[in-house]
Amino acid sequence: MLRLAELAAKKRRRVVGLMSGTSADGIDAVLVDLWGCGASTRYEILAFNTTPLPGDLRREVFALFAEEASLDALCRVNFALGEAFATAALAAVEQAKLNPESIDLIGSHGQTVRHLPASGATLQIGEPAVIAARTGAVTIADFRTADMAVGGEGAPLVPQVDHLLFGHRREGRLLLNIGGIANITALPANADTSAIRAFDLGPGNMLIDAAVAHCTGGREHFDQGGQRAARGRVDEALLAELMGHRFLQREPPKSTGREEFGEPFLAQVLGRGTWSDDDLIATLTAFTVQAMAAGISRFCPGEFAKLWVGGGGVHNPRIMAGLRHALPDLAVQSLAELGVDPDAREALAFAVLANETLMGRAGNVPAATRAQHPVVLGKIALPGPVVGD
Amino acid sequence: MLRLAELAAKKRRRVVGLMSGTSADGIDAVLVDLWGCGASTRYEILAFNTTPLPGDLRREVFALFAEEASLDALCRVNFALGEAFATAALAAVEQAKLNPESIDLIGSHGQTVRHLPASGATLQIGEPAVIAARTGAVTIADFRTADMAVGGEGAPLVPQVDHLLFGHRREGRLLLNIGGIANITALPANADTSAIRAFDLGPGNMLIDAAVAHCTGGREHFDQGGQRAARGRVDEALLAELMGHRFLQREPPKSTGREEFGEPFLAQVLGRGTWSDDDLIATLTAFTVQAMAAGISRFCPGEFAKLWVGGGGVHNPRIMAGLRHALPDLAVQSLAELGVDPDAREALAFAVLANETLMGRAGNVPAATRAQHPVVLGKIALPGPVVGD
Repeated sequence: MLRLAELAAKKRRRVVGLMSGTSADGIDAVLVDLWGCGASTRYEILAFNTTPLPGDLRREVFALFAEEASLDALCRVNFALGEAFATAALAAVEQAKLNPESIDLIGSHGQTVRHLPASGATLQIGEPAVIAARTGAVTIADFRTADMAVGGEGAPLVPQVDHLLFGHRREGRLLLNIGGIANITALPANADTSAIRAFDLGPGNMLIDAAVAHCTGGREHFDQGGQRAARGRVDEALLAELMGHRFLQREPPKSTGREEFGEPFLAQVLGRGTWSDDDLIATLTAFTVQAMAAGISRFCPGEFAKLWVGGGGVHNPRIMAGLRHALPDLAVQSLAELGVDPDAREALAFAVLANETLMGRAGNVPAATRAQHPVVLGKIALPGPVVGD
Repeated sequence: MLRLAELAAKKRRRVVGLMSGTSADGIDAVLVDLWGCGASTRYEILAFNTTPLPGDLRREVFALFAEEASLDALCRVNFALGEAFATAALAAVEQAKLNPESIDLIGSHGQTVRHLPASGATLQIGEPAVIAARTGAVTIADFRTADMAVGGEGAPLVPQVDHLLFGHRREGRLLLNIGGIANITALPANADTSAIRAFDLGPGNMLIDAAVAHCTGGREHFDQGGQRAARGRVDEALLAELMGHRFLQREPPKSTGREEFGEPFLAQVLGRGTWSDDDLIATLTAFTVQAMAAGISRFCPGEFAKLWVGGGGVHNPRIMAGLRHALPDLAVQSLAELGVDPDAREALAFAVLANETLMGRAGNVPAATRAQHPVVLGKIALPGPVVGD
């Protein structure tokens, strides 16, 4: 454990954070220098990039989303994704013109193939032993299971990082992440961990992306610049019906995923009527926005003046304009205003969570996940080669 | 990492080793005090027991052995097995009349649901985060992936432990383990790691167990006392045919599993003719013995006087008598002669491997697994609760 003790004793650690979202179209890798830990954490982002998943591998990942799947394929994809995550980490290091040897630590979220909070189970893949072997860096992964082992929903995990990096003494802050799923962290001014509220709001880009893929026969995967939504007309009756979804009514803390707002949900919607492609996408975009706004208005009471937005959804002007319209009392801004590439937020979060684990610190927010208590998250894989006896 | 550093600094560590074999009928838990590490490792076994898997859970595990399976079920079984492994660990601690707080470390092999060395992939389940949370002990699990990440077959992993615990300065020793699969470790006198030969020999109890389950409609799972084999007559023609199996001809190092010698193999045999139940079991028992003896004679050259046998197969007198008959130049003895309960050997191995990992030491034998180099095995899960900020 000499290596871990040496890492923990360093004043500054160079850390890679790796994330592949529910859409599984690429691996986000952020390279960051971290000083300290906990509330004293300071950071400097050195590089960020997204490495697309090879098409074959992406298809294999999606095959695992089916109800029945080949466990042989699961095993192979776990190792193949480990290689892809390692490649993404090394690409970020190369972008910063640094040597792989300078990396102290990697925090890898992995690729979620199941998230079943009601069953107390979850599965993220992307073999950390492969990442450690290819990069030579201590790799911490599989962050959600420890929280679930103590009764938590295993999500959201970003709130503790929001708290550490973006919490403010005199200003209440809302941080919205629009990935496949949308989630919010509410940080009252000068909050401690117990005062944080954080929960999933509903679909982020997931439903819009699925609809675009459906309408284009799989040729396109997202609504570039929100153009399709802009051309379409919202079906208000369908929108009102969708807003009755039970997930939106549930009191937080709560979490959701592809199981609730993925392809099966789209199939249900498509079963209810016929719309032009653009009208369908406009309506689902409106639903996505209204679900976020309703959750924020209803479940984030307190004094918040600003809403910072990260995740891929920040690039969809229909979503950003929709949020500004629906939440007139909040200043809605991209996370870039805080100096963080909005696409890098989740990868950054897992770099910071790995750092917390290395330092023996808890990474979950029980008020957000319903866990019984704080726990150290993740599992530590050590790289080779080493000398045997 | 203070906790790991403190553990590593202790003179004596109290460790639980956990193992569930390919037959998935129970979890072996050994409680052992370990002094030192590497070649200086000394051990004292404090307790050993086997906790049967609840019938429902065992059926769910077997459902995962099918080609297509529910990934929801995989996730749930992973967490449920974590609970079962924790229960087994605590039962061993209670048997020794000790407190769970006295446990320093747990090494858990988990339950293999896939082992695909040809694809460079494997999957062991039994969530370590759950084991750590329930026991309060640092838990190291998932030992096979790191070896596979550097080109190894991920098996066998017991040889390094055989070397550390049973290697001898002046005496060449053969250690045979008859679990679901049979494997051998050849330890020449005064060997270093590079001189160890170790490989899978073929089926251990797996094929006999499958035949008994088939013949009894699932009411029995093994040939108690070898009685069925003793009553039956060996079909020499079938035996000769089975001995032509390509796995037996392959040069070591090599590993195999349920994929090669499980139910599909039995189904192939059953398709070749008709036998009474006892004749079938006698022939498969003879095949199991002959495959082991042939592998040992052919692929373990050198000066060995003794063959120590561990694993469940030691309780089958037909197997033990068969080995003595087929290997007249070797003294075939139960591992009990070395002071180790023969059923405890694999669980003990994962306690020792966890100790090696904690000490930052390699646990694989590249000559046995074909790995490119030695690596630290396993992933470390830290228990809660801990104090957040």
